[in-house]
Amino acid sequence: MATVDFEVLRNAAARLQSAPISKLIADDPARAGDFALRAGALYANFARQRYDRTALDALFALAETADFPGAMQRLIDGDTVNATEGRSALHTALRGDLSPAPVAHAASAQAREARTRMAALIDALSASNVTDIVSVGIGGSDLGPRLVADALSLPGARFRVHFLSNVDGAAAQRTLAGLDPARTAAILISKTFGTQETLLNGTIVRDWLGDDGRVYAVSANVERAAKFGIAPERILPMWDWVGGRYSLWSAVGFPIALAIGMDRFEALLAGAAEMDAHALKAPPRENLAFWHALTAIWNRNAFGAATQAVLPYDERLRLLPNYLQQLVMESLGKSVRLDGAPLREQTVPVWWGGPGTDTQHSFFQALHQGTQIVPADFIGVVRNDDPYSENHQALLANLLAQTEALANGQANDDPHRAYAGNRPSTLLLLDALTPEALGQLIALYEHSVYLQSVAWGINAFDQFGVELGKQVANRLLPALRGETEADDPVTAALLAELKLRL
Amino acid sequence: MATVDFEVLRNAAARLQSAPISKLIADDPARAGDFALRAGALYANFARQRYDRTALDALFALAETADFPGAMQRLIDGDTVNATEGRSALHTALRGDLSPAPVAHAASAQAREARTRMAALIDALSASNVTDIVSVGIGGSDLGPRLVADALSLPGARFRVHFLSNVDGAAAQRTLAGLDPARTAAILISKTFGTQETLLNGTIVRDWLGDDGRVYAVSANVERAAKFGIAPERILPMWDWVGGRYSLWSAVGFPIALAIGMDRFEALLAGAAEMDAHALKAPPRENLAFWHALTAIWNRNAFGAATQAVLPYDERLRLLPNYLQQLVMESLGKSVRLDGAPLREQTVPVWWGGPGTDTQHSFFQALHQGTQIVPADFIGVVRNDDPYSENHQALLANLLAQTEALANGQANDDPHRAYAGNRPSTLLLLDALTPEALGQLIALYEHSVYLQSVAWGINAFDQFGVELGKQVANRLLPALRGETEADDPVTAALLAELKLRL
Repeated sequence: MATVDFEVLRNAAARLQSAPISKLIADDPARAGDFALRAGALYANFARQRYDRTALDALFALAETADFPGAMQRLIDGDTVNATEGRSALHTALRGDLSPAPVAHAASAQAREARTRMAALIDALSASNVTDIVSVGIGGSDLGPRLVADALSLPGARFRVHFLSNVDGAAAQRTLAGLDPARTAAILISKTFGTQETLLNGTIVRDWLGDDGRVYAVSANVERAAKFGIAPERILPMWDWVGGRYSLWSAVGFPIALAIGMDRFEALLAGAAEMDAHALKAPPRENLAFWHALTAIWNRNAFGAATQAVLPYDERLRLLPNYLQQLVMESLGKSVRLDGAPLREQTVPVWWGGPGTDTQHSFFQALHQGTQIVPADFIGVVRNDDPYSENHQALLANLLAQTEALANGQANDDPHRAYAGNRPSTLLLLDALTPEALGQLIALYEHSVYLQSVAWGINAFDQFGVELGKQVANRLLPALRGETEADDPVTAALLAELKLRL
Repeated sequence: MATVDFEVLRNAAARLQSAPISKLIADDPARAGDFALRAGALYANFARQRYDRTALDALFALAETADFPGAMQRLIDGDTVNATEGRSALHTALRGDLSPAPVAHAASAQAREARTRMAALIDALSASNVTDIVSVGIGGSDLGPRLVADALSLPGARFRVHFLSNVDGAAAQRTLAGLDPARTAAILISKTFGTQETLLNGTIVRDWLGDDGRVYAVSANVERAAKFGIAPERILPMWDWVGGRYSLWSAVGFPIALAIGMDRFEALLAGAAEMDAHALKAPPRENLAFWHALTAIWNRNAFGAATQAVLPYDERLRLLPNYLQQLVMESLGKSVRLDGAPLREQTVPVWWGGPGTDTQHSFFQALHQGTQIVPADFIGVVRNDDPYSENHQALLANLLAQTEALANGQANDDPHRAYAGNRPSTLLLLDALTPEALGQLIALYEHSVYLQSVAWGINAFDQFGVELGKQVANRLLPALRGETEADDPVTAALLAELKLRL
């Protein structure tokens, strides 16, 4: 892989230090339109970022050096982009059949077959007396389904879908309270079928149901799932060529399809496939995924931004920040290049956020007047699906107002009432919150994340960083039961404290 | 106010650059116990922070220079600590009567009187056929009640309490779906009774109820609330000496008391009052609020940490990070000192987080192997209240394991599987999630925030930074309706795009 020279970006940023966003716009008002683009139901405007046309040239030169187009092709063709684990990452094959490469094409066929089986299971459940579904999974087996089911659920849906993830017993207790075991089905989602949380919670739910016949699984390990007591016909497949955090498009989306219907689940996939084609084929300057990834790199490596806010102005997208935290930070939270060399650049910042307008009354004070500049993705939905038009106008007015106020600021003789401005943001607008548009939005972030990994030369698809904690937890379990001692003096002190109070 | 010399801290941090946490502990194993303290039901261990005893001396010298004890006294006595608005900040008087100062003592009496009225309203509602409460408020009128009601609600509670905050009409639609207007009461919470979101949503809920007799208000502006159609006997007071983000202890806690019962609401207040007395009276080295505030200052100003994670290992505390985002970032997101001079130090970092063990499967990859060090507050609960002891053991094992793994790391010949360690954290343990313990925990954060503001010389109690966005939104509303034009070229382009798609 070609090495990207980030120093060029820092020099460009240094040149722009004396040019706040308001000046960049005043000097070049045409950027309001020229720094905007559309892909399907998604419109994006980057005019309130802290770059000018010259800096953008440097960024698109970086995309060329890092070979973004070739990288997209390799991803979609099923090349071994997850090199440390020797795997491809074929989430695009779950929702389309874009590549003639045999491995990708075969994966698409497997995915379609799994969906056919899933649709049959949904038909059977729909014909049953089941009203509630408990989806048991964590991380990649939870956050995607939870986001999409919450975002797209409609009143009067056939099933109520509940999500159980946390190993804390309070989660199981609260999830099952008020449900009728005779009218509930459960889905255990775990790629390995070895996830501690999912096995513990799955056992609780299975015992509570008292009937194995309503327990389903989504797993790549059919043997383990069968050993748990789940009949093969109720086990849907996963594959090692799909990462957990990229898996909502697979049978991991079973709870989504139950919550929103199979047709709308297919529409979600079609929207994502449309974004795949766009990211693969659109020329760099018209490519939304390229713009988004380059903007992230710019804020991180040229300006040193330590965090990135995600601010959906739609109650139905309130879980998007949580979802993106995993997608982005688990994919890009690395310090070592694919070739094993340590990185000299900062990789992923902290991604965080929350829904507008709530967050305006929470942490926006710090965004406007704090000492730290936080780049933000504002996400709005043009048309609402509720009957409250006055509320929707207020929502959109606040959305536009915040991006303007953050960028432009406002002088004041009273320093406590002055706003420095020059806070960068991107505005993403969905025409409406349809399954297609949400599919496009999520796929956009997936591709942006991948392209950022390409620029940094890291692997977006492994997650070795989560292993050590699991190992230590397994070692501490007997110590908690008093069977062994802890080696670490602090852990020993904490165990003693726990013993006193338990 | 005396000016704190942060350079001393940076020098101490520079000295410690070559001493990772694991070495600090190996060199001084007694810190496992010496860097720990208890206040009531709260235990805190700071042994996995990146300071040694010499650095702590510098920090406690800072507390002396900044006069933390005097600052606590001034807060609790009702001095004008909110100087830019000429007000006191008497949230401590809402939950105790700790100060003989007349203004504080009088505030306590007012707060008690309001609770007596609140209790009577709850008794009347309990005797009615009302089953559901919709609490309408946003920011400080929402996050506190939402957190506590969620954390402490028990199965079989008298009322189901729902929270409606976002101006997005989807929020109102979803909140009201499935509720019976004949068995629902509403509480509108707004200090000014001029909050856009709360008035729009309050109007929707009032119209949906079709009966003014079940609409309540909590407000400092009785006149406006009355004009909205709420009878004075159903209006509970707020006061200008309580900030919104410090108000859950006041009648803003009405939905809390409905959700958990008046007795347990009083216990919550008693727990907070216990922490107030501790923060006021405990000697600096035994003062949990001092330790917590100094640790935050240390990570921010000595090591330059840009973010702070909050990681509650209890499903019932899942909203704590959201709550603290407002408390901390709205209080400390300032760039100007009380005297009007610009700060030369970084103030508040980004506070963010989420519940364990979920987040282990989400963003923990970046905490362990990312390029950016994120200090974390881990929060655990020793005794569980659910019947799943195996889950609880797994939860505690993971909690201890993560703090150990982050601190100590683990070497590996494969750089992709190596963990650098030296990631600092504080562990806070509650004996159990009782109302008292939760009151102590929240009050601890309140006092830590205040003491951080004292160290930085800023006002923790104003929030001028949220005004500009509101002004611009009001200006843009007519532009959205096509009645006016936008001045800013980017806003104009966005309005044109919206018009095309609406």
